Amino acid sequence: MKTLIKNGTVVNSTGTATADVLIDGDTIAAVLAPGSTLLGFDIERNVDTVIDAAGKYVIPGGIDAHTHMQMPFGGTEASDTFETGTRAAAWGGTTSIVDFVVQYAGENVLDQYAAWQDKARGECAIDYGFHQILSDVQDSSLVAMDELVKEGVSSFKLFMAYKGVFLSDDGQIVKAMQKASSNGSMIMMHAENGSVIDLLVQQAIAAGNTSPYNHGLTRPWQAEEEATHRAIMLANLTGAPLYVVHVSAKQAVEQIAVARDRGQNVFGETCPQYLYLSLEDQLGAQSDEWGSFEGAKWVCSTPLRSKAEGHQHHMWQSLRTNDIQMVSTDHCPFCMKGQKDMGLTDFSKIPNGIGSVEHRMDLLYQGVVDKQISLERWVEVTSTTPARMFGMYGQKGVIQPGADGDVVIYDPNGHTSIGVGKTHHMNMDYSAYEGFEIDGHVDTVLSRGKVVIDDNQYLGAKGDGKYIKRGLSQYLI
Amino acid sequence: MKTLIKNGTVVNSTGTATADVLIDGDTIAAVLAPGSTLLGFDIERNVDTVIDAAGKYVIPGGIDAHTHMQMPFGGTEASDTFETGTRAAAWGGTTSIVDFVVQYAGENVLDQYAAWQDKARGECAIDYGFHQILSDVQDSSLVAMDELVKEGVSSFKLFMAYKGVFLSDDGQIVKAMQKASSNGSMIMMHAENGSVIDLLVQQAIAAGNTSPYNHGLTRPWQAEEEATHRAIMLANLTGAPLYVVHVSAKQAVEQIAVARDRGQNVFGETCPQYLYLSLEDQLGAQSDEWGSFEGAKWVCSTPLRSKAEGHQHHMWQSLRTNDIQMVSTDHCPFCMKGQKDMGLTDFSKIPNGIGSVEHRMDLLYQGVVDKQISLERWVEVTSTTPARMFGMYGQKGVIQPGADGDVVIYDPNGHTSIGVGKTHHMNMDYSAYEGFEIDGHVDTVLSRGKVVIDDNQYLGAKGDGKYIKRGLSQYLI
Amino acid sequence: MKTLIKNGTVVNSTGTATADVLIDGDTIAAVLAPGSTLLGFDIERNVDTVIDAAGKYVIPGGIDAHTHMQMPFGGTEASDTFETGTRAAAWGGTTSIVDFVVQYAGENVLDQYAAWQDKARGECAIDYGFHQILSDVQDSSLVAMDELVKEGVSSFKLFMAYKGVFLSDDGQIVKAMQKASSNGSMIMMHAENGSVIDLLVQQAIAAGNTSPYNHGLTRPWQAEEEATHRAIMLANLTGAPLYVVHVSAKQAVEQIAVARDRGQNVFGETCPQYLYLSLEDQLGAQSDEWGSFEGAKWVCSTPLRSKAEGHQHHMWQSLRTNDIQMVSTDHCPFCMKGQKDMGLTDFSKIPNGIGSVEHRMDLLYQGVVDKQISLERWVEVTSTTPARMFGMYGQKGVIQPGADGDVVIYDPNGHTSIGVGKTHHMNMDYSAYEGFEIDGHVDTVLSRGKVVIDDNQYLGAKGDGKYIKRGLSQYLI
Amino acid sequence: MKTLIKNGTVVNSTGTATADVLIDGDTIAAVLAPGSTLLGFDIERNVDTVIDAAGKYVIPGGIDAHTHMQMPFGGTEASDTFETGTRAAAWGGTTSIVDFVVQYAGENVLDQYAAWQDKARGECAIDYGFHQILSDVQDSSLVAMDELVKEGVSSFKLFMAYKGVFLSDDGQIVKAMQKASSNGSMIMMHAENGSVIDLLVQQAIAAGNTSPYNHGLTRPWQAEEEATHRAIMLANLTGAPLYVVHVSAKQAVEQIAVARDRGQNVFGETCPQYLYLSLEDQLGAQSDEWGSFEGAKWVCSTPLRSKAEGHQHHMWQSLRTNDIQMVSTDHCPFCMKGQKDMGLTDFSKIPNGIGSVEHRMDLLYQGVVDKQISLERWVEVTSTTPARMFGMYGQKGVIQPGADGDVVIYDPNGHTSIGVGKTHHMNMDYSAYEGFEIDGHVDTVLSRGKVVIDDNQYLGAKGDGKYIKRGLSQYLI
Repeated sequence: MKTLIKNGTVVNSTGTATADVLIDGDTIAAVLAPGSTLLGFDIERNVDTVIDAAGKYVIPGGIDAHTHMQMPFGGTEASDTFETGTRAAAWGGTTSIVDFVVQYAGENVLDQYAAWQDKARGECAIDYGFHQILSDVQDSSLVAMDELVKEGVSSFKLFMAYKGVFLSDDGQIVKAMQKASSNGSMIMMHAENGSVIDLLVQQAIAAGNTSPYNHGLTRPWQAEEEATHRAIMLANLTGAPLYVVHVSAKQAVEQIAVARDRGQNVFGETCPQYLYLSLEDQLGAQSDEWGSFEGAKWVCSTPLRSKAEGHQHHMWQSLRTNDIQMVSTDHCPFCMKGQKDMGLTDFSKIPNGIGSVEHRMDLLYQGVVDKQISLERWVEVTSTTPARMFGMYGQKGVIQPGADGDVVIYDPNGHTSIGVGKTHHMNMDYSAYEGFEIDGHVDTVLSRGKVVIDDNQYLGAKGDGKYIKRGLSQYLI
Repeated sequence: MKTLIKNGTVVNSTGTATADVLIDGDTIAAVLAPGSTLLGFDIERNVDTVIDAAGKYVIPGGIDAHTHMQMPFGGTEASDTFETGTRAAAWGGTTSIVDFVVQYAGENVLDQYAAWQDKARGECAIDYGFHQILSDVQDSSLVAMDELVKEGVSSFKLFMAYKGVFLSDDGQIVKAMQKASSNGSMIMMHAENGSVIDLLVQQAIAAGNTSPYNHGLTRPWQAEEEATHRAIMLANLTGAPLYVVHVSAKQAVEQIAVARDRGQNVFGETCPQYLYLSLEDQLGAQSDEWGSFEGAKWVCSTPLRSKAEGHQHHMWQSLRTNDIQMVSTDHCPFCMKGQKDMGLTDFSKIPNGIGSVEHRMDLLYQGVVDKQISLERWVEVTSTTPARMFGMYGQKGVIQPGADGDVVIYDPNGHTSIGVGKTHHMNMDYSAYEGFEIDGHVDTVLSRGKVVIDDNQYLGAKGDGKYIKRGLSQYLI
Repeated sequence: MKTLIKNGTVVNSTGTATADVLIDGDTIAAVLAPGSTLLGFDIERNVDTVIDAAGKYVIPGGIDAHTHMQMPFGGTEASDTFETGTRAAAWGGTTSIVDFVVQYAGENVLDQYAAWQDKARGECAIDYGFHQILSDVQDSSLVAMDELVKEGVSSFKLFMAYKGVFLSDDGQIVKAMQKASSNGSMIMMHAENGSVIDLLVQQAIAAGNTSPYNHGLTRPWQAEEEATHRAIMLANLTGAPLYVVHVSAKQAVEQIAVARDRGQNVFGETCPQYLYLSLEDQLGAQSDEWGSFEGAKWVCSTPLRSKAEGHQHHMWQSLRTNDIQMVSTDHCPFCMKGQKDMGLTDFSKIPNGIGSVEHRMDLLYQGVVDKQISLERWVEVTSTTPARMFGMYGQKGVIQPGADGDVVIYDPNGHTSIGVGKTHHMNMDYSAYEGFEIDGHVDTVLSRGKVVIDDNQYLGAKGDGKYIKRGLSQYLI
Repeated sequence: MKTLIKNGTVVNSTGTATADVLIDGDTIAAVLAPGSTLLGFDIERNVDTVIDAAGKYVIPGGIDAHTHMQMPFGGTEASDTFETGTRAAAWGGTTSIVDFVVQYAGENVLDQYAAWQDKARGECAIDYGFHQILSDVQDSSLVAMDELVKEGVSSFKLFMAYKGVFLSDDGQIVKAMQKASSNGSMIMMHAENGSVIDLLVQQAIAAGNTSPYNHGLTRPWQAEEEATHRAIMLANLTGAPLYVVHVSAKQAVEQIAVARDRGQNVFGETCPQYLYLSLEDQLGAQSDEWGSFEGAKWVCSTPLRSKAEGHQHHMWQSLRTNDIQMVSTDHCPFCMKGQKDMGLTDFSKIPNGIGSVEHRMDLLYQGVVDKQISLERWVEVTSTTPARMFGMYGQKGVIQPGADGDVVIYDPNGHTSIGVGKTHHMNMDYSAYEGFEIDGHVDTVLSRGKVVIDDNQYLGAKGDGKYIKRGLSQYLI
C-alpha cells in the first residue's frame, strides 16, 4: 500500500513545514516539498491512496507510554482489554502504547513477561511495547533485567508504595538501580511514601472518613515530594537514570528540576488528569446516581491535587519549561458499576485509576489552543519525547523517512465533544472528562501505513498492532 | 542544480536516520529512505551531482548567531571583513551568520542599519542576517525597532557596560524591553556591570597592574552575575524575552536557570572559548615573540574564567541540561601586530575579541567525541536552536523539505588540526586555538544547494551569500 | 539616683527570668534573684525608688536604628524635631535612636556631620547616635569615613535611587564598600533601582495616573529585589558587610536569605508598616477630608506591598526565621496639611515617609500576642539586635550590670489605643496606625536611670538624651 | 556556700560584660557591676569564697545534649559509666549532659526509663537529664510519650537506620511525630537511610572490603541527605518540631537550611568530629599497634566525611550562619582493645562511637581562636542553645540570677594538650583527638555552686549530679 498525504502542515517537535509525506508499505518513504512531484516524477499517479491534508496538521502518531490494559488490581481487572483499549487509543490519535507487564511480589518476572506477551499477541489495534514492573525486587529479578533488555523491554518500574503488593524497600531499589546503571536501562518510579499513606488511610477509615475525597487527603503532597526526592537521591548514588511516573505535586516537580539543573538524568511524566482536574473537583462531585460517591470516578494514584495550591498551574508551566518532559495517561480504567463501587463504604477499596488513553492527544491539543504550550511542544510531549525516552525514536515519534507510517491528520478547525454516548470507545461506563469540548479533531490515523481511523470510522482490525522491540533510551542527558 | 546526498546519517536535533537528501536549486526537495529511488523512479539518474555520504554525518549547516565582521571598535576594526570572515565560516561548516549592525551612542539607528547592509551586500560567502545594536537607547531608537522588525531584524542588543560607547542605563533598557514586549522581538544583553568594571580597571592601572591577565581580574564573575540577574529582573518586569550573550560565569548560568525554572523566557548563549579556555591559560601564556603579553590573544569580554573555580566544567554541564541553549562564537578577530599590541603597556587598550567563526562546528564536535554532549545536541546547539531562537527555522537549521540547501557532510573518521599555517582562513595573524586537534572533519559544505567547500577546496565566490530576512523567535517558552 | 525594679519578669533575647534590677546612677548595678536582699543586705531600704514590676515585663529600652528627625527632603522637612521625635519615642518605650546625618550630593560630609551634631545637641529626650548618609560618593567622602568611625559613626548609608539627590552609581558604591571592608564599618543600603523607578514614575504621570496609589505601582518589587541582589553582589565582591534598610518585598528577603546561607555578612531590616499595612490598604483608602488622596498618608519608600502577593505574611515569617534580623521604623513624618498635600495632583511630589517612632514597641508586642514572634524575639528584634548590629551592645540592648539604665516596664495586661487624640505625641496631624488596638502598655520608661515616662506622664526634659559614640558592629557572622 | 567570682569577663550568647557573679547555695544570686560591693555593702567579706577571674572568661557551664554513658550496643557497652563519663565532662567544663534512655525494639519504654534512672542515680558528677529513644515505635510507646513529658523527658529520638534494633518505619515515625505535635515535645532523628546502608555494607563485606575506612564508604552522604529530607518532610506533614542529630554531610545541612528558610521548626546538631576530622584522616590512619585498623578509632555514625568534598568547611560555616544551631558530642566511647577490635576482620562489627565529652568546650573554643566562630557564638552553641533547645533555659545555659550556679572560668591564656597520659579522664584507651593543642584552658568549674574542678584537680564527688527535669523546648521558631 502506497499513500501520499499531501499539502499538510507537518509538525515535528522543532518546527513546522508544509510538505508531502509518502508512505510505502509500513514505513515513510519520503518527505517532500509539496507539489506531489519529484524531479518531474508524478507521485500522485503512482500511489494507491492520496489524502489531502491541506489546512491540517500532519503529526507523528501519539505514543502513550503508560497504560494498564486488563491489569489485575485490587480484586478486579482494568476494564479495557488490549483489544478495546488499543482501539480506543487509535480513535484518539495514539498509534503506540507501552503497557506494563505486572509481576506481583512472589511471582517470577520472566514468567509474567511471557504471560503478558500472550495476552497482547493478536489482540491490539496499534503497536505496543512493554515496560516490566518489578515488585519486591529479588535477585532473580535482577538477572531477568538483562534478559528483558535483549527482548526490547528496556525500562523497569518500581514502587515505593503498596506494601506486600508492589513495594520494594530502598535497598531493593538500589539493587535494581545498580543493574540499570550497568545495562543502560531506565528505572521508572511510582514515587509515593507508602508507609505514610497506609497509616493515614488507616487513621482516616478509623475516624469514619470513608468517602472518595479522603483518597486525596490521605495521599498528601509531602508523601509524593518525599518519595520523589528519595528516588532521585538513590539514583544519584547509583548513577541510574530515573523516570518519575504520574507526577502531580508541584513540590515533586521542584525536586526533579533541582536534580536536572545539577546534571542528573532525571525525568518526569505527568498525565492529563493532573493538568485539568483537581481535588476540589472531586470534593464537589455529586450526582443523582452516586451522590458524593461520584468522586470515585477520579480516584487515582498519585491523587488529584488542590487547585488552590496551584498544582495544575505549575504542571502546565513545567511542561513549558521542560521540568516535566512528557505526558502519558496512566490509563487504568474501571467501571463505576461493579468495580469502583467496591469502595462505596470505604474509599480505600475503590480501584485506583482513570481511563483516558482515547483523549490524551485531544486534551493536550486543547493546551495549544489555550496557549499553555506551543504546537511543536504538543508533538514533543505526546510523541517525540516518549519515543526518545523509551528507545523507539526513528521508528516512532517523528515524520521522517524510514520511520513507521504512524501518522495522524489533525484538523484544527474540527471539534470533539468528550463523553459517554458522544466520542467514547473505551470500555468504561463513565468518562472522567465528560463534557469537555476540544477545539480540534482527529481526522485520520495511519498505523504503519494502514488507515485505521478515517471520517469517524474505525477501519482497522484486531491484531493489526505488533510488538515494539525497544532499544535503550535515547534521551539521557 | 540538483544534488543527491546519499546513504548518509542525517542528524537532526531529535535523532538520526539513514536517509538520502535531495536538493533541487536552493532548497531541499525531499528526504528519502536510502536507495536513491522513489516508487521505482531512479533519482540518481535525474540529478546533476551525487555525493556519497556513507559513514558520514549529514547535518544542517552551522549557524553562528554572534559575529562582528569588520566591526569598528576601540580605534581599530575587527580584522575579518564580511568577505574573509564568511569564507572562513564556510570552511568550518557554518553556512549562516547573524552579524551586528553597530549603532554607537549618538548615531542614528536606521542610518547604521543601511550602512551595514551596504557593507555586507555582495561580499559574503554564505547567508547573513543582522541583529541591531542599540546604544544609549533614545526614543528614536524605539521607533526604529518597529521598522527593523519589518526588515527582518528581530533582535536588539543592549549593553550594561562600556559607558559613553554602548551602555544604556536601566531605565533605557526598560524602555527597549517594553517595546520588545509589544512587538515580539528579542532583547539580547551584554550583561556585565560596566560601572564596577570601569572602577576596577582604573584601580588596576593605577596600581601598575597592566598585563593582559588583569583584564580578567578586573571583570570578576560578580560583575557578570549581577548584570545577568539585573537584566532578568528587568525582563521580568516588562515581559520581554531575554537572550544573554557570551555567558562565561557559572553563577550567571545559575541565575538563568532559576529564571527559566519559574517560566520566564530567558536564554543563554555561550562560546567555545568559555568551554575550552581559562583564566589560568591566560596567566600562564608566554611566548618568545610576545613574552607575557601573549595573553592578549585571549582578551575578550566577558573574560576567560578560572578553571579552578569550575566555570568550564559547569558550562558543558549547562549545555547538557539546556540551562544554556546554544553556542555562538562572538567572532571579533584582531591581529596581535598592529591591533592587540595597542595595549602592550595597558591591558585596557587591547581590543577585546577572539576569532573562531571557522572552528565552532569542529570544537563542538570534539565535545561529542569527549562525551560532553550527544550528537543530536551538537546539531541542536550549533544550528537548530540558533535558527529557532532567531526566527529562521524552517528555512535554516534543519534537514527537511523546503529548507535551504545548507548542508554539511561531516566525517567522524576525518581529522582537523587547528592553527596558523594549517587550517586557518580567518584574517588573523594567530589562532586562539593553535594546536587543538579535532577528531572529525568538515568534508563538504553546501550553501543553498551550491557546493562551496569540498575536498579541502573553496569552490564558492564572494557574493554567494544573501541577506536573511528573519522572523520573530520561534523559541519562546 | 538609685532605683530598684523588683519582682518583674526580665526578658532578654534568649529567655526570661524573675529578677530584681538595681540601677545606680546611669547604669545597671546588679541583676538579682528576687527578694530585694543580697546576703542579708536589704536593698530596698538603700535605694531612692522602688518600682514593683510584678506581673510585668522588664525589658531593655527599645532602640530605633532608623529615624529621620527634622530631615530636609523634597522641599520640606520631616515634621518631628529632635525634641518632639525623641519625646514621642520615649512615650513608646524607645530609649535610643540612631538618626541619619544627611549629606546631599555636592555637600561636604564632615560639615554635615558637624551640623547634625549641632541640631541634636541639647534637644533630645533620649540617647541618640548617628549613621552617615553618603550621597554621590566622592573621594573626600571616603576619607571622611575613617574620621567618622573614630567619632562613633560606624555605619554609612548609600542609595541606589534618587538620582542627583542621594544616588551613588555602582562604582561609587564599590569604593565606599572597599573602605568599609578595610575599616570595619557597616554599609547600609537603600536598595531600589532608581533608574527604573524614575522611568515608571514619568510614564505614570504622563499617562495621567497621579493618585497616591501609583506610588506603589511605580516602585514594583522587581526594582527592590534587583537592587537588593546588586548590593549583595557588590558586597560579595568587596567583602563589606551589608545592611539592607526597610525591606518590604518577599523576593528581596529571599535574596538576603540566599546570601546569608552562603555565609555572607548580609542583614535585613524591616519596619512595622511592612508587617501591618499593604498596597491594598492604600488603594482602598478614602476619607471625607482627602478623598482618595487619603492614601498619601502611607506614601513611603520602599512602598507598601500587595497583601495578595503575601509580602506581609512572608515578612513576619522572615522575622521568625532570622532572615530579617531587626525592626526599625524609618520614622520620617510629614503632615497631610502643608506637606503631603504638595502632591495632591502628582503623587511623585508627596514627601515620602511614615512616622511611627512612638509605636514600634507596641506594634511588635502585638506580634507576640498574635503569636507571630516569641516574647524573646520581640526584645531581640527591637533592642538587642539593633544594639549589636550597630556597636552599642553592653551599653544598650540588654539588662545586665554595666549597661545603661535604659529599661522599660511593659504591662501585658495593659492596653493601648493608637490614634490622634488618643496616644499620639509625634508632631503629625494624622496617625498611620489610627484605630490600631494593642494588648499591652508601656507603663514606665527609664533612660539612663531616670524615669522619663510613668503612669502616662512624661517626666523627662529636653536635653536628657546624650550622644552615643558607637563602636563597630558586634553582629558580623 | 557563697561564692563571688569577681572581675571576670562574663560571656553570654549575645555579648560580653565585665561583671561579678555571686552564687549563693545552688544558684546564682546576682550579677553585679565589678567592684565587689553593692550600694556600699561589701560582698567580698560576706561570702565563703572569692575567685578572681580577671583576664578570664566566665561562662555558663557547658551542656552536652547528646551522650551515651554505659550504653549497651553491639554486644558490648560504651566504656564510660555515668560516673566516669560525667567526671570527664566536668574536667572539660561541661556541667550538664542529656543522655539517652535506650529502648530497643521489643522492650517497654517506661521500664527502660526506670532502669536508666536507676543506673544514673547517685553516680553522676554533674547534672543529667534524659532523652528517650523510641525504637520500632509501638502504640504503648506513644502513650508513654505523654507520661515521660511529665517526668521531664521532653524529647524523643527515633532512628531511620539499624533495622531490627532501633529502626522505625516511616509510618511509625509519623505516629510519634503526631504525638509530639500534640504534646509539644521534640523529635530527634538519627537520619540515615538504613536500608541502603545495610545493602552497601553487605556488598562491601562480600567484596572483601573489610577495613575501617569502608565504614564511611558504605554510609555515603546521599544516605544522610535523603533521610534528613525525609524526616523534614514527615515533620512538615505532622507539624512536629524536628532536631536532626550528628549532622555531618553538607548536603544534609542544605536540606535543613531550606526547611528553616520556609519557616519550619527544624534544627541541626553537629559534633566536634565533623568539624575537625575527615574520611581522609581515617583512610590514612596507620599505627604500629593496629596497622590500618587504626582507622577504627574514628568509626562513628554518621561517619566522618571527605575533606576534599568540603564538608568540614561547610559545617563551620553552618555554625556561623545558624543553619546548624548547636554542638554536642554524641559521646559513645569504646576502647580499641576488647571493643573496637571486635571488628578487626569486618568493619561492620566495630562498635560505632567516639568519646569526646571531655573536649567539646576546648575544641569549640579553638574555633574561636581560629576565627571560625565568635566568642559569644561559642557559648551559644555549647550551652545557651542546648539549654533552650531542650527546655532547661533559665536553670541552665546562662549567667543570670536564679540560674543554677553552673559556671566555668576559662583562661584564654592557658593551654591544653589533648591526649592519653596528658589530659584524659574518659574511660577509653585512646583519644580521638590525640595530639590536638588548644589555646585555652578550663581553670575552674562550678556545678550548682560547688567547685568541682580547680587548678587541675577534681574536687567533686560521685553523686553530686542531680536529675534535670526538663520542660518543653524554648527554641521553637
